[in-house]
Amino acid sequence: MVKILVAGGVALLITLVGTKFWIRFLEKRAYGQFIRSDGPTAHHVKRGTPTMGGVILVFAVVIGYVVSHIISMLVPTLTSSPPSMSGLLLLGLIVGLGIVGFIDDWLKISHAQSLGLGSVAKFSMQAVVAIIFGILALHFPDRNGVEPASRYISFLRDISWLGMPFVVAVIWMAFLIVGFSNATNLTDGLDGLLTGSASMVFIAYGVVNIWQINQFCGSLSTVGPKCYDVRNPLDLAIIAMAFAGGLFGFLWWNAHPAKIFLGDTGSLAIGGAIAGLAIMTRTELLIIIIGLLFVLEATSVMAQVGFFKLTKGKRLFKMAPLHHHFEMLGWGESTVVVRFWIIAGLSVLAGAGLFYAEWVAGS
Amino acid sequence: MVKILVAGGVALLITLVGTKFWIRFLEKRAYGQFIRSDGPTAHHVKRGTPTMGGVILVFAVVIGYVVSHIISMLVPTLTSSPPSMSGLLLLGLIVGLGIVGFIDDWLKISHAQSLGLGSVAKFSMQAVVAIIFGILALHFPDRNGVEPASRYISFLRDISWLGMPFVVAVIWMAFLIVGFSNATNLTDGLDGLLTGSASMVFIAYGVVNIWQINQFCGSLSTVGPKCYDVRNPLDLAIIAMAFAGGLFGFLWWNAHPAKIFLGDTGSLAIGGAIAGLAIMTRTELLIIIIGLLFVLEATSVMAQVGFFKLTKGKRLFKMAPLHHHFEMLGWGESTVVVRFWIIAGLSVLAGAGLFYAEWVAGS
Repeated sequence: MVKILVAGGVALLITLVGTKFWIRFLEKRAYGQFIRSDGPTAHHVKRGTPTMGGVILVFAVVIGYVVSHIISMLVPTLTSSPPSMSGLLLLGLIVGLGIVGFIDDWLKISHAQSLGLGSVAKFSMQAVVAIIFGILALHFPDRNGVEPASRYISFLRDISWLGMPFVVAVIWMAFLIVGFSNATNLTDGLDGLLTGSASMVFIAYGVVNIWQINQFCGSLSTVGPKCYDVRNPLDLAIIAMAFAGGLFGFLWWNAHPAKIFLGDTGSLAIGGAIAGLAIMTRTELLIIIIGLLFVLEATSVMAQVGFFKLTKGKRLFKMAPLHHHFEMLGWGESTVVVRFWIIAGLSVLAGAGLFYAEWVAGS
Repeated sequence: MVKILVAGGVALLITLVGTKFWIRFLEKRAYGQFIRSDGPTAHHVKRGTPTMGGVILVFAVVIGYVVSHIISMLVPTLTSSPPSMSGLLLLGLIVGLGIVGFIDDWLKISHAQSLGLGSVAKFSMQAVVAIIFGILALHFPDRNGVEPASRYISFLRDISWLGMPFVVAVIWMAFLIVGFSNATNLTDGLDGLLTGSASMVFIAYGVVNIWQINQFCGSLSTVGPKCYDVRNPLDLAIIAMAFAGGLFGFLWWNAHPAKIFLGDTGSLAIGGAIAGLAIMTRTELLIIIIGLLFVLEATSVMAQVGFFKLTKGKRLFKMAPLHHHFEMLGWGESTVVVRFWIIAGLSVLAGAGLFYAEWVAGS
């Protein structure tokens, strides 16, 4: 618990204090966001707000993780825990997708237009990072033979009759990671929307991991009805809560009217982290519930495009992603954000409740 | 778990759907809020927004509780649980304080001014409700001799060397209830501020109660390092989650720009419920952490008044309660609300973390 709190606290402090300086630095260099010209007209006033806030978020998560481990080695009363394979792989995924997002953000700034990376190039780079993660995550078993990821599709735990061959498992994981990082990318369109809703998702994963530590199959004191075979849940909890802390601190500055945006650096890293946590905690399908808001946002874009093509020009929503649709209906930006947070909060509660209920029902 | 989810879901549905009709009803009768004339000038535009949203909130909580119990008796797979003494006492406290708030709201509307009940009358009525609750809560032991409340001051559980005689214990409980319901009353000054932050506090108490069910001393399967002697934690969890659900649904309409306010009906009931939950879960001092935002808001008013009297006219804050101070500093209303929610979220996480850490450390 101490290590988890340290990681969350350090990440919180870094984004809470550091974002102020990061904003000043970006403003000095005039690295502002160029709002896409096809978005709602009301958003054009946001032109010039610095983006790439994700850089400090990813930095905060990594430093939170490192400090937490250093403290665990220095303080004699704590169990010293060197970085684990699951932790390092997840950090690699986060940083990898953060770099893809950074390239995109950077191109937007330096070309001074809202386009950034071409969609094929961006997708390919996401896929490469995801596939490398997937391949590595199916290696490195621990003493009990548990690897960071499994070859089973999972819901509240691995589903025993949904095993996959190695290659299919890697493709499945890559699909989840690329899909989710694009979903969070699409969600990141209103002040604080992604930051606030993602913080709740990370808290849920922190709780899930703490429960998996508590009910670890290898532990002697575990006597609950069902136990969990997950590699390094403590390290996963540390990263999840570092993200939650970092997002809380970032939201301070990202709340309406936003002084800084996450940018693709942040939104891709967040989506990757959520998918990675789902894969490694064996709760892959549960993210459809816990991350329902992101799923809805992504689905709204696909439905809009599909419907448009199918009907040769008709629109399902006034504008996609979903949050713009409600803006066009006349809801204020703050109203959309708070109502979407409510949806996110309810989904997170439902997902976490389901996870706990399955454990209770096992008795 | 099913009963808790039913209560939360029913309360959510009632406020989500019902508040729309409640707003329409209040608007038809022109029951609007009269914003206090000494508040920030920007708030004068809020004149006319309907208040007494707390009526539907309290209604939703009570119905959520009742439906949950009816379902537990009708569905054969569920353990039938008649309403418990703790549950009824807590509901009585909520409804009692709700009525005090309602009288206040009603006087404001019918007199068409922002004054309402005089402070002495309001305080006395709160105290009477709180004292009746305190006296009753120290009776009705269950089979194991556990009463709804205890005569000990508690932090993460009863503190064994802080026992009190009956009368002192009642005064202590009344102090907590009156203090907290005034604190939430003061916090309720910006769109969504109290609604959002209180929902997090109730989720924390839901989790605390679920943990106390899981680690109940009377249960045979409990084998954790430490167990909890609390009367009827399931019923307390049902009410806490009914409040969380009801507040989520209400926030849909209470988010900036608010279509309706909680009014004193809501804010007094919320504060009373939080204090009541703290008393009955034996975590009284923990609300200073879990409910830190409310404590800070109340303290800011006391400090402002005290400082003003002491210095014969100087002010500590530009305006009290605290949220108005930051508004005067130039923060937008949404910014203050989201930043205060961040503070509330962090305090809730810290409080819940502490509660869990104490249990873990017991091993």
